[in-house]
Amino acid sequence: MKIAILPGDGIGTEIVAEAVKVLNVLELPFEMESALVGGAAYDAHGHPLPDSTLHLAKAADAILFGAVGDWKYDKLERQFRPEQAILGLRKHLGLFANFRPAICYPQLTHASSLKPELVAGLDLLIIRELTGDIYFGQPRGRRIATDGHFPGAEEAFDTMRYSRPEIERIAHLAFQAARKRGKKVTSVDKANVLETFQFWKDVVTEVHKDYPDVELQHMYVDNAAMQLVKAPKALDVVVTGNMFGDILSDEAAMLTGSIGMLPSASLDKNNKGLYEPSHGSAPDIAGKGVANPLATILSAAMMLRYTLDQAEAADRIEAAVQAVLSAGLRTGDIWSEGTTRVGTAAMGDAVVAAI
Amino acid sequence: MKIAILPGDGIGTEIVAEAVKVLNVLELPFEMESALVGGAAYDAHGHPLPDSTLHLAKAADAILFGAVGDWKYDKLERQFRPEQAILGLRKHLGLFANFRPAICYPQLTHASSLKPELVAGLDLLIIRELTGDIYFGQPRGRRIATDGHFPGAEEAFDTMRYSRPEIERIAHLAFQAARKRGKKVTSVDKANVLETFQFWKDVVTEVHKDYPDVELQHMYVDNAAMQLVKAPKALDVVVTGNMFGDILSDEAAMLTGSIGMLPSASLDKNNKGLYEPSHGSAPDIAGKGVANPLATILSAAMMLRYTLDQAEAADRIEAAVQAVLSAGLRTGDIWSEGTTRVGTAAMGDAVVAAI
Ligand SMILES: CC(C)[C@H](C(=O)O)[C@@H](O)C(=O)O
Ligand SMILES: CC(C)[C@H](C(=O)O)[C@@H](O)C(=O)O
Repeated sequence: MKIAILPGDGIGTEIVAEAVKVLNVLELPFEMESALVGGAAYDAHGHPLPDSTLHLAKAADAILFGAVGDWKYDKLERQFRPEQAILGLRKHLGLFANFRPAICYPQLTHASSLKPELVAGLDLLIIRELTGDIYFGQPRGRRIATDGHFPGAEEAFDTMRYSRPEIERIAHLAFQAARKRGKKVTSVDKANVLETFQFWKDVVTEVHKDYPDVELQHMYVDNAAMQLVKAPKALDVVVTGNMFGDILSDEAAMLTGSIGMLPSASLDKNNKGLYEPSHGSAPDIAGKGVANPLATILSAAMMLRYTLDQAEAADRIEAAVQAVLSAGLRTGDIWSEGTTRVGTAAMGDAVVAAI
Repeated sequence: MKIAILPGDGIGTEIVAEAVKVLNVLELPFEMESALVGGAAYDAHGHPLPDSTLHLAKAADAILFGAVGDWKYDKLERQFRPEQAILGLRKHLGLFANFRPAICYPQLTHASSLKPELVAGLDLLIIRELTGDIYFGQPRGRRIATDGHFPGAEEAFDTMRYSRPEIERIAHLAFQAARKRGKKVTSVDKANVLETFQFWKDVVTEVHKDYPDVELQHMYVDNAAMQLVKAPKALDVVVTGNMFGDILSDEAAMLTGSIGMLPSASLDKNNKGLYEPSHGSAPDIAGKGVANPLATILSAAMMLRYTLDQAEAADRIEAAVQAVLSAGLRTGDIWSEGTTRVGTAAMGDAVVAAI
């Protein structure tokens, strides 16, 4: 079995190095192979997702991804920008199901922007559809408007769309995930305005018939953005489309105060997956050895559990992370009075030692 | 001069009644005329925005709106649902500029979900484009997919679009508003994925050339959803499209903890406007006399200031609201230990008395 290691840009290389350290110490029967992606790949090969990298990702059984992006690529044409790599991987690998847990670790409750009583014990799972919606819908582009408020003016446009099977498969995953948790799914839509999300709501309602033991709630996206702030613990599994999921999963992650701790999985229909931290490439702190590697280490654990069938090894990593937190070790992003500030490598070493 | 009074559904009638009380006591040279809108209009006339109501709204110089919506209309065909009234008014009256302040009142800092230090003194203004984007873009509907992941499957679709003049006019308003405040505009887009919002970013950048004294920052919508939680006070004026603005303005309002206090204005190109509270029709507490009328009363003040050229009267209302808060009067939504709980009418009476 092979794991593709794609560190990417910014803090990506530093945090992935720590996750690789942790995987190595477990002595599992996996081969690992690295490749460049994002800005690093553009610099070396003139493309953020070179064929060789895409080929490795396709051939591998699972992918561990760091982060991509840096200000210095901001002026490139869109097709060469780092984030096209992640969009390309999702599309070419059919990674339609993005699992983003938003968990508030007991040791880190105080790090949240929210009052402790609102987030203590928070454990919610956002399931975001990842290969459809307005992210990939055609047609899109620029043209001269022929109708609307200013016929004759230059305009840009995109197409939002979802087909029945796309909605069905993500809805099934959400209900199945909820069965193993709080047995409640909140489907987020904007059915009061969008045809696409009226259809989404209709199809999710139909799929729900197969899961009478799971409660289904429909919520408008604007209300969901509010409920996350007001009472996040009232939510269990949240399922939504690509665009709304992008916004709500980041909002939810930030609410926990420990976005540097949150892993994510993007899965295809056979449970093959790309695993990455929920945070970005943080170019402002890249190369300084201060980034938090725990989200990436926990992403590796998620990879072992969901794709590589190594639940026991995943448990060991997760327990080790709990142990280092309980021992008071903290990187700068989660540091507080009375805890011990450590750098990226020291945090990785501590997890290795705890294993 | 005429003010159209459209109370709507749920708590709408109760809160608008208090705002009307306040307007009456000011003895201004305005006529007021009421009409049904939303579910109430559907019940009486079979349409949420009857011609007579639209006609009154068009003829009036300003509109004071309560709220629309109730669960009992959820099963109606989309075109008859209460929220179509508000979409119809925006469209037919050309109300393209939605001003939604998110203010944290000093007396209510504790009511926020966020830690007090993060929100104390918060005063941010979200300017949402209101007549374009995916809300109104054509084509939209259902069809059989001819491409994408599942050709041959049933799908639904919508069109996101913005033309240059639509972006220009809202950008100008944002820069002009920032000039009178913190001199900083944050334009929220998703230029890394959407053609529409790459265009948005380009046009806002061009318009910025006319306002060298104002700082312009571009932010992706997912990041904006995070920054609102992490450091809302770093934002001054936020300008964005209809869909993103819907989500972010509600998130920001909820962050203040006092959504029951927040007014909004939706303006056309001549500063004619529709004024309404930022919160909804709250059918769960309708008719109980407990809703907070202050957002509607403050919306009336905004109307006097922006559309009716009565800044002094607006000042008097706003000062009166501050006075009743400082005197410790609170409706249930903002009540806390040590303050005096009052109902809708008592709160309105207190504002009248303070004037
Ligand atoms: C980088 C960007 C294209 C991407 C997205 O919008 O999906 C990112 O925000 C994410 O959520 O993974
Ligand atoms: C009721 C609905 C159509 C409306 C919108 O999405 O614009 C509401 O959420 C708002 O923000 O005024």
